[in-house]
Amino acid sequence: MTDDFTPRPEDHFSFGLWTIGWQGVDPFGVATREPMDPAYAVEKLAELGAWGVTFHDDDLVPFGAAETERANRIASFRKALDSTGLVVPMATTNLFTHPVFKDGALTANDRDIRRFALRKVLRNIDLAAELGAQTYVLWGGREGAESPVAMDVRAALDRYAEALNILCAYVREQGYDIRFALEPKPNEPRGDILLPTIGHAIAFIGELEDSDRVGLNPEVGHEQMAGMSVVHGYAQALWHGKLFHLDLNGQNGPRYDQDLRFGNGDVKSAFLLVDLLEHGGYHGPRHFDFKPARTEDESGVWASAAACMRNYLILAAKSRAFRADDEVAAALADSRVPELSVPTLAAGESIADLRAEELDIAEAASRGAHAEKLDQLALEYLFGTR
Amino acid sequence: MTDDFTPRPEDHFSFGLWTIGWQGVDPFGVATREPMDPAYAVEKLAELGAWGVTFHDDDLVPFGAAETERANRIASFRKALDSTGLVVPMATTNLFTHPVFKDGALTANDRDIRRFALRKVLRNIDLAAELGAQTYVLWGGREGAESPVAMDVRAALDRYAEALNILCAYVREQGYDIRFALEPKPNEPRGDILLPTIGHAIAFIGELEDSDRVGLNPEVGHEQMAGMSVVHGYAQALWHGKLFHLDLNGQNGPRYDQDLRFGNGDVKSAFLLVDLLEHGGYHGPRHFDFKPARTEDESGVWASAAACMRNYLILAAKSRAFRADDEVAAALADSRVPELSVPTLAAGESIADLRAEELDIAEAASRGAHAEKLDQLALEYLFGTR
Amino acid sequence: MTDDFTPRPEDHFSFGLWTIGWQGVDPFGVATREPMDPAYAVEKLAELGAWGVTFHDDDLVPFGAAETERANRIASFRKALDSTGLVVPMATTNLFTHPVFKDGALTANDRDIRRFALRKVLRNIDLAAELGAQTYVLWGGREGAESPVAMDVRAALDRYAEALNILCAYVREQGYDIRFALEPKPNEPRGDILLPTIGHAIAFIGELEDSDRVGLNPEVGHEQMAGMSVVHGYAQALWHGKLFHLDLNGQNGPRYDQDLRFGNGDVKSAFLLVDLLEHGGYHGPRHFDFKPARTEDESGVWASAAACMRNYLILAAKSRAFRADDEVAAALADSRVPELSVPTLAAGESIADLRAEELDIAEAASRGAHAEKLDQLALEYLFGTR
Amino acid sequence: MTDDFTPRPEDHFSFGLWTIGWQGVDPFGVATREPMDPAYAVEKLAELGAWGVTFHDDDLVPFGAAETERANRIASFRKALDSTGLVVPMATTNLFTHPVFKDGALTANDRDIRRFALRKVLRNIDLAAELGAQTYVLWGGREGAESPVAMDVRAALDRYAEALNILCAYVREQGYDIRFALEPKPNEPRGDILLPTIGHAIAFIGELEDSDRVGLNPEVGHEQMAGMSVVHGYAQALWHGKLFHLDLNGQNGPRYDQDLRFGNGDVKSAFLLVDLLEHGGYHGPRHFDFKPARTEDESGVWASAAACMRNYLILAAKSRAFRADDEVAAALADSRVPELSVPTLAAGESIADLRAEELDIAEAASRGAHAEKLDQLALEYLFGTR
Repeated sequence: MTDDFTPRPEDHFSFGLWTIGWQGVDPFGVATREPMDPAYAVEKLAELGAWGVTFHDDDLVPFGAAETERANRIASFRKALDSTGLVVPMATTNLFTHPVFKDGALTANDRDIRRFALRKVLRNIDLAAELGAQTYVLWGGREGAESPVAMDVRAALDRYAEALNILCAYVREQGYDIRFALEPKPNEPRGDILLPTIGHAIAFIGELEDSDRVGLNPEVGHEQMAGMSVVHGYAQALWHGKLFHLDLNGQNGPRYDQDLRFGNGDVKSAFLLVDLLEHGGYHGPRHFDFKPARTEDESGVWASAAACMRNYLILAAKSRAFRADDEVAAALADSRVPELSVPTLAAGESIADLRAEELDIAEAASRGAHAEKLDQLALEYLFGTR
Repeated sequence: MTDDFTPRPEDHFSFGLWTIGWQGVDPFGVATREPMDPAYAVEKLAELGAWGVTFHDDDLVPFGAAETERANRIASFRKALDSTGLVVPMATTNLFTHPVFKDGALTANDRDIRRFALRKVLRNIDLAAELGAQTYVLWGGREGAESPVAMDVRAALDRYAEALNILCAYVREQGYDIRFALEPKPNEPRGDILLPTIGHAIAFIGELEDSDRVGLNPEVGHEQMAGMSVVHGYAQALWHGKLFHLDLNGQNGPRYDQDLRFGNGDVKSAFLLVDLLEHGGYHGPRHFDFKPARTEDESGVWASAAACMRNYLILAAKSRAFRADDEVAAALADSRVPELSVPTLAAGESIADLRAEELDIAEAASRGAHAEKLDQLALEYLFGTR
Repeated sequence: MTDDFTPRPEDHFSFGLWTIGWQGVDPFGVATREPMDPAYAVEKLAELGAWGVTFHDDDLVPFGAAETERANRIASFRKALDSTGLVVPMATTNLFTHPVFKDGALTANDRDIRRFALRKVLRNIDLAAELGAQTYVLWGGREGAESPVAMDVRAALDRYAEALNILCAYVREQGYDIRFALEPKPNEPRGDILLPTIGHAIAFIGELEDSDRVGLNPEVGHEQMAGMSVVHGYAQALWHGKLFHLDLNGQNGPRYDQDLRFGNGDVKSAFLLVDLLEHGGYHGPRHFDFKPARTEDESGVWASAAACMRNYLILAAKSRAFRADDEVAAALADSRVPELSVPTLAAGESIADLRAEELDIAEAASRGAHAEKLDQLALEYLFGTR
Repeated sequence: MTDDFTPRPEDHFSFGLWTIGWQGVDPFGVATREPMDPAYAVEKLAELGAWGVTFHDDDLVPFGAAETERANRIASFRKALDSTGLVVPMATTNLFTHPVFKDGALTANDRDIRRFALRKVLRNIDLAAELGAQTYVLWGGREGAESPVAMDVRAALDRYAEALNILCAYVREQGYDIRFALEPKPNEPRGDILLPTIGHAIAFIGELEDSDRVGLNPEVGHEQMAGMSVVHGYAQALWHGKLFHLDLNGQNGPRYDQDLRFGNGDVKSAFLLVDLLEHGGYHGPRHFDFKPARTEDESGVWASAAACMRNYLILAAKSRAFRADDEVAAALADSRVPELSVPTLAAGESIADLRAEELDIAEAASRGAHAEKLDQLALEYLFGTR
């Protein structure tokens, strides 16, 4: 295992402006850090070895800013992009901070607000396209309810689908090279959020008019808040061809959304997720959506951002070594893992053929899975003892 | 609110043989109750007012029984059905108890076992059809893994889809009037189970050859084990047209699978779920999949089974009264709940039209949702104080 | 069951200023409601039928306010108390909002900050005593860590104990009629908080110099965030004589801290908790620590505050009726509930006597607990169908 | 870091007979492995490098066995101990498998059963003493309820305390060198179990007559089922002087009790727990209470048992290296971790002295905690990249 874990642009690491720029407001405390200028953020990320930067409209231009201010802020950001070479692979809309969205945005009961939310998205899509983003993320953090009585879930899904259909039509008409990625989350800030997991979001996409243009941006911690296996979830998203983008971070199971730096939290899942991404055909950005702990000063912000990338590279190196190890290959075979890729029915075999077969059940039942040994091999790669 | 909560056949209540017949084996204790003869179970359920009974193959005929014993047991069961008038709306396969399924059935790494599992399902489908079942449930309790290394999730989904495609083809060829219903569960008995939630299962169904023939059999407690809102989940299943059947019971959040009698556990969700089913277009069986507590003797078995039905009827009566109350209608309007059914774009309206509109954001942001009042009205119906 | 659920002072309902005054800041959104003047809050609470009001120092007087402003604000508050008759049964310190407390207060690694935190508590204890509060609550929301490496838990417990010993000595020396009540919480805003449950806090108190002066202020939702039974937890606190005060609200299991209005969330637990409080010897304030949903305007604030009290009264009436029902008494006896109060060894009986006895194990094992029937009776009282 | 991770007797590793002997019965499946003869288990454990073996009475001698059989089985076990040199550091009672305990044992509502349970414990204490065990564990798996109505929690705590007082008196009278260790668990197999966490159990112990003789046997997975930090929990137990014994295993957060091999599950917590034990003054056995996955044949049983010990040694070596690293020491100082051991008040300092001090709050608030950097250092030791 090489120990050069220095991030390079070809590693495709990207960060949201809202991550390193998070000021530390939480439900029980006010900001502990100063606002961060986007251009400064871009420069620092470039220094650390990042490849891309992503943003919510309001990260770049404050909500309600005048046109001139907006133009100046965008120009400053572009200048930083140009001078550093950082790209903007993804953009998204803030449909959650302002009080107007307190009861939802694209699925607010209040139709005026749904219409306003759509306008806000459309406007930022234009900017996203201008900045070259190819993925546009929708996290519906306020699309939910505290009381199931106060929201007709089926009507909400109708409106959500209507909104996606409108947005897809717009992007198509404008000829933008943009795909949409939905970000599931089970709860917080709403009691229950629509499309709570990877599964619910993929199911929903199946009902859209232009479903090929819509995929997912799953977040590690969001799935873990529902006790879901991220490896299973991301693998199912890949199976459906829907892993368009992703949010890497850490979480300690069902509790508030922690947004720990990547590699922290459930360390074993982080390893096996990187293993899946590196060997499972995911070629998009390695995007971090984390929050440097509120206890940190600026040095902690950059220490944690650098650690996100370094941890990914460490885990990727472990994954390469694990997959190249003959003993691992033998253990996989011993656990019959490759056998699952063999169709259950042979080519040309009929159901009648299948039914004619007999199995020595007692013998088959006695076969061990040898999963403890195989899993321990993975653990030793994680520990660095192999 | 009438207080006649006596179940009648037209209420379409059904129970699995394995529910009232559960002997109380748990991870730390052996059976506390004797095995229950299926014919006896049918008679008792009929006395209590049930309409239907459902079964796993092995509930009716022990695994590996000789043909004569099998025939006798089925005959005895049919006789009880005939004498009581109980129907068999659903059947399913036990693919989890026998050691041969310890590492999976339809998605076992071991191809021999996958083939055996398919044969077991096919055989019981024939019996299900013979007994008039129109829904065939698949709960993949062993389709999962403790270690993500020991199962290739995408290959597993391939095999799961292959199995469903085979089963659908078989049912079609035989001309059986049967649809399949998948039952999601996040974990237990496996560390992580494939298709962990309603969402994942609907997404999966979208990839099947005969996806119209496959829907869901969601279980209240299984969704709650993942911290999911059952009302949101079942509503999304209805939205997709996939609520083919259901399992009603109770659970206290993320922990082991409790299978409490229906109405117990999260009482408010039970009320709002009944409200959804009664007013949301679900017309299938009201099927209970619960376990009378292991502490109970036979009297407790029947007390809890009767309570499942009674609780459903009580909550349905509350729901009818709630929906008929003018003050509730006014509160719903005040919370703009019906407004969510109005399309966001008017007929014929263009995106340009939408973008031309302006909103008084401060005014819109000041509008209260009045959800606390509305939710409290629902709570008072639950309490019986309205 | 009477249906007069109008709160009266003798019901001893109290509210924190921070509850009805919550402006709706959450991790993803800014304030949706205006600040509320404490005097106005007192008047409104009095109108609704509350008996008491509680406060953090910073709820009453902004952090860092000048002496004159402080005096004016306290005077205005006192005037409102005098004119309404509301009492101040409890006060507490805000040791979590200001950035200086970002890494802890009484257990901050930074000794300067621990000393500052102590001064802040001492100052507000003087005010609490002046206003007649007999309970002083300590919620250590920032006393914890995201990383177990960054906090030496045993040193932190030493410092926590040191702080409590100092505070008890001060109160004793001043002759204040004040007891302390610790409020446990498992996490949020810190990754893990010290004294995460009722149990941990009572254990800790056992090590203090003046442990009789220190008890608990458990919060319903905090225990439920750890999946704990509130009935078990509060009953254990009563058993230890440590239920000094309490925070009533609602929560839907392990997730972010929801602070729902009391009666909402886990409705059955709310009922059985009220049953415990009303029949279990708790005579302190019925204090609500909830947050009116962020979606609400001021009307929703008062609707939810009124509902907290009304729900308590509804559940208390149900509890009285339940405990007075002969059929319930018979069911309790049938479940041998009263038999648990009979000592296992008879007076004067020796261990040798006990060992000489023999049990018909099979017969004893066959006795049913009849808990399903008993629990269903409780549920019917909750539903109002008995 | 040495890579000799071969267990030796001086490492004090011990296993329960029920761990490697687990046959794989779970709520949905029957046994997948044959019963294991205790003498054989002892020999195999000795070969693997274990130092001790522990047992429930019924692991060694089946419930209800005749005296001769009992004597033969004990003799066979002793012979294996003698020939291998394995010790019996701990023993415990099975108060959960037999139907007679279905509604509790030492706190059953049924007094006959409480008395029987006490006799069963007393009898096995005699055997434990004879075999040299110095710790006697009580896991009250059935001491709980599904319904809070069916158990009077305070009466149950009275009976639990009565039982402990009787047992302590007996041990004292007999002159046995035995201490008791309570094992907390939040739920499963009961809906809610008494003494659900480390905290609740320590609090309870404070009320016992001979509280010095009673401490804890906390299990990693049990605390994690309640979302608790094991590092915080075990550290608090150490702080109280109550970490008498422990159960090491793995778990993936709130869900059914997984009993994964040690090192698996939450890997980072496993590391930091070993770090605490090795540097925090714990000198008792390193006891594993895990279950080899039900999918495994006998080879998987021994592979997983060996991995438990190996993982402990790997993590202990990492901990030694971490604590010896100057950069770690500097980072700890930079995060002011050692400063927490300095009393908040200086020797002789009065409260008045403290109150006279002033803090530059803005400056203090700006100090960073540098916890991200420190935690990342720990992570790199876990990864083996330092």
